[in-house]
Amino acid sequence: MSDWELEFDELNELAEKSQFKKLKAILDEKNEMDVAEFISQLPHEKALATFRILQKDLASDVFACMEPDQQEEIVSSISDTELNLIIEDLATDDAVDLVEEMPANVARRILRLATAQTRNQINQYLKYPENSAGSIMTSEYVALRAAMNVQDAFQYIRQHGVDKETIYTCYVIDEKRKLIGVITLKDLLMNPYEAVIRDIMDDNVIQVTTTEDSEEVSQLFNRYDLLALPVVDSESRLVGIVTVDDAVDVMEQEATEDIQKIAAIAPSEKPYLKMSVLTLARNRIVWLLVLMVSSMFTGSILEHYEAAFASVPLLVTFIPMLTGTGGNAGSQASTMIIRSMTLGEVEPRDALRVLWKEFRVSLLCGSALALVNYIRLIIMYPGKEMICLVVALSVMGIVIMAKALGCLLPIAARCLHLDPTLMASPLISTILDAASLILYFQIASCLLTF
Amino acid sequence: MSDWELEFDELNELAEKSQFKKLKAILDEKNEMDVAEFISQLPHEKALATFRILQKDLASDVFACMEPDQQEEIVSSISDTELNLIIEDLATDDAVDLVEEMPANVARRILRLATAQTRNQINQYLKYPENSAGSIMTSEYVALRAAMNVQDAFQYIRQHGVDKETIYTCYVIDEKRKLIGVITLKDLLMNPYEAVIRDIMDDNVIQVTTTEDSEEVSQLFNRYDLLALPVVDSESRLVGIVTVDDAVDVMEQEATEDIQKIAAIAPSEKPYLKMSVLTLARNRIVWLLVLMVSSMFTGSILEHYEAAFASVPLLVTFIPMLTGTGGNAGSQASTMIIRSMTLGEVEPRDALRVLWKEFRVSLLCGSALALVNYIRLIIMYPGKEMICLVVALSVMGIVIMAKALGCLLPIAARCLHLDPTLMASPLISTILDAASLILYFQIASCLLTF
Repeated sequence: MSDWELEFDELNELAEKSQFKKLKAILDEKNEMDVAEFISQLPHEKALATFRILQKDLASDVFACMEPDQQEEIVSSISDTELNLIIEDLATDDAVDLVEEMPANVARRILRLATAQTRNQINQYLKYPENSAGSIMTSEYVALRAAMNVQDAFQYIRQHGVDKETIYTCYVIDEKRKLIGVITLKDLLMNPYEAVIRDIMDDNVIQVTTTEDSEEVSQLFNRYDLLALPVVDSESRLVGIVTVDDAVDVMEQEATEDIQKIAAIAPSEKPYLKMSVLTLARNRIVWLLVLMVSSMFTGSILEHYEAAFASVPLLVTFIPMLTGTGGNAGSQASTMIIRSMTLGEVEPRDALRVLWKEFRVSLLCGSALALVNYIRLIIMYPGKEMICLVVALSVMGIVIMAKALGCLLPIAARCLHLDPTLMASPLISTILDAASLILYFQIASCLLTF
Repeated sequence: MSDWELEFDELNELAEKSQFKKLKAILDEKNEMDVAEFISQLPHEKALATFRILQKDLASDVFACMEPDQQEEIVSSISDTELNLIIEDLATDDAVDLVEEMPANVARRILRLATAQTRNQINQYLKYPENSAGSIMTSEYVALRAAMNVQDAFQYIRQHGVDKETIYTCYVIDEKRKLIGVITLKDLLMNPYEAVIRDIMDDNVIQVTTTEDSEEVSQLFNRYDLLALPVVDSESRLVGIVTVDDAVDVMEQEATEDIQKIAAIAPSEKPYLKMSVLTLARNRIVWLLVLMVSSMFTGSILEHYEAAFASVPLLVTFIPMLTGTGGNAGSQASTMIIRSMTLGEVEPRDALRVLWKEFRVSLLCGSALALVNYIRLIIMYPGKEMICLVVALSVMGIVIMAKALGCLLPIAARCLHLDPTLMASPLISTILDAASLILYFQIASCLLTF
């Protein structure tokens, strides 16, 4: 954090002067995330030298915290022996991420240097579909047997627990590796040494299969306040666990993607400053084009009414206000519903309830906006009551229409197994622009004579 | 999840027939969150009866999972003795939430029934500002002394750990309750019984003060993959801990708020279906009004150019496309930057880098859009080359302007200590609508003769 960044100057000086012994003494005491951040801002040569002086255990933890480009630099600069040590020390999920993110030749070198067992595991994990529970799980879990007693369990954990991602939730498996129970370290501690696992374990295990969507996984963590979640294969055999820190990453990632989609950007996993200009442009241009083409249709609707605004040019000046209000009212409703569906608070079967709610909300909002508009127009354009009435009525109608479409389109998308965020603000705004203009000029041609 | 909901029919039947013994046998085996969900969909009388048959420990856990309205029903239907048992069994943070959410008379009854110690604690917690670390922390933590050895620590945890929110991270305090170190249960297990805590604890403790913003707290969890975070007062004395499940709730809440603000809705904590129509309307009307009034200014800009579109009505038909594209391009940039700032990936000092990046992105996107537009217009309106050129140039200019404003306004807001999400899509769209129109008609009046 900022305290830590303040220390950078001092540490940079040590690195600058190659006083690595002093530097090592300070860094070995720090959190791996902080060390990774410090190294990332050093010049290439110094970064590598600093990474190499780190304690062996810390080094692989720091490596796991680094950005892919920095990892690549390190991997291509260290010896095979050093790389082997790091790979074997990484948790399976981190090793899999590494292989996925590196260019092909670097990935091959990593797989070559891994032990046969690690390599098999990495290869197996690479087969799981992206964003599945299998792709984010790790195999470093503690598996106990039902016949063990608490003392056996503690002995087992003391012997095997060092390299496990978590020892706080232990899983109980039978001789076919089928998951039959779960027991927390707290339960173990609170029971006498003689108690048998079978009697004290919880056999009602919350679990997922390898193919479960990672978003569902993170929702389970949130719902049940879990620290870890077991992942089983199609035959109920335990194959891995997802830990809460990985579930949290998925949650943040999902929120970012939703926010990007709501703003009509193709979602991306990289941080903004790490993305190339070309990637940024590509992520945005598709939606900009789609929306531009569809707003051309809106424009051609206006062509139909050229006669109207040639004879009453004042009508044109209200267009931005009307389409803007429609777009805003619609995206308020759609965003509310999209987020509520993501959080599992609204389901497609609630469609009618939602519509009825939005209808009443739109009556309230619509009347308020229409009233403010009417008063303002009557004052600004005295003698043009009919035009004022047209605008006020249009505002009312547009808000009602916008809220109804805004809540129904995301639900419809969900029912059609499409991504509801597709229906987010820009697309809805464009649809509403067209609908608003038609409504406006229809009301105008009824009440006014051109 | 869905499996559980499938069981509802069966269980509802048991409740219906008042076969509470069978019902109890099933529910006592279930997760508290699932039981709370089951009870919430029962009719009032049955819900209360079902809640009362639950095992005592489960009952208070289930109670903590319930929605406030259901909690209120339960509180007002149970005896003082029953309520006292629940209150004393709740974690401090849950008890504080309860007092905050209940109507005044119910809150008074709760405080009256709590023991003096619990009441003091609740009252103290109520003083922390909303969304501070103090308001989300809990006091159920394990505090050890530096002079203890591992065996002492285990004995202490076995005696006092049952009611703690987590025993997996233990804190070491001195005689003045100052926080001097942290040790995980894993460290304790991996060390011999004789090892002294002072020698094996980590004295580099990641900690926050009670007044720290809860969003910062959740970012610390994410950055350091923590399970718990100690909270200290201004004199470094340990006063509570925040556990990862509460940090996750804050994260989801913050993402929801950001998404709501991006869609110009006043943020709210309640689930959509629980909010009254009036609340929903109130949360939306302010922004709708503000944006409507500002788009009236856009309208009045058009009045200035009445002469232009009276003589070349075709110009009007491009307005929706131009303002729409400007708004979309701008909100893409602003949303990217807002989210990146929330995640700590972009800081105000990166402003120039961001601007330079967005400028290049806008050149790419702008040229593509201008080209597509020009080709389409040349085909559709042969002989009106100058108008086509005006539109294409305007698109280019508008995209560049939109991206620049879109990235700079949120950063400016952050520098002025305003909420950057204030600058989210609708507000930026409105500003851009006006700017786009001015640019368009300026280019038109240079290249065309009216």
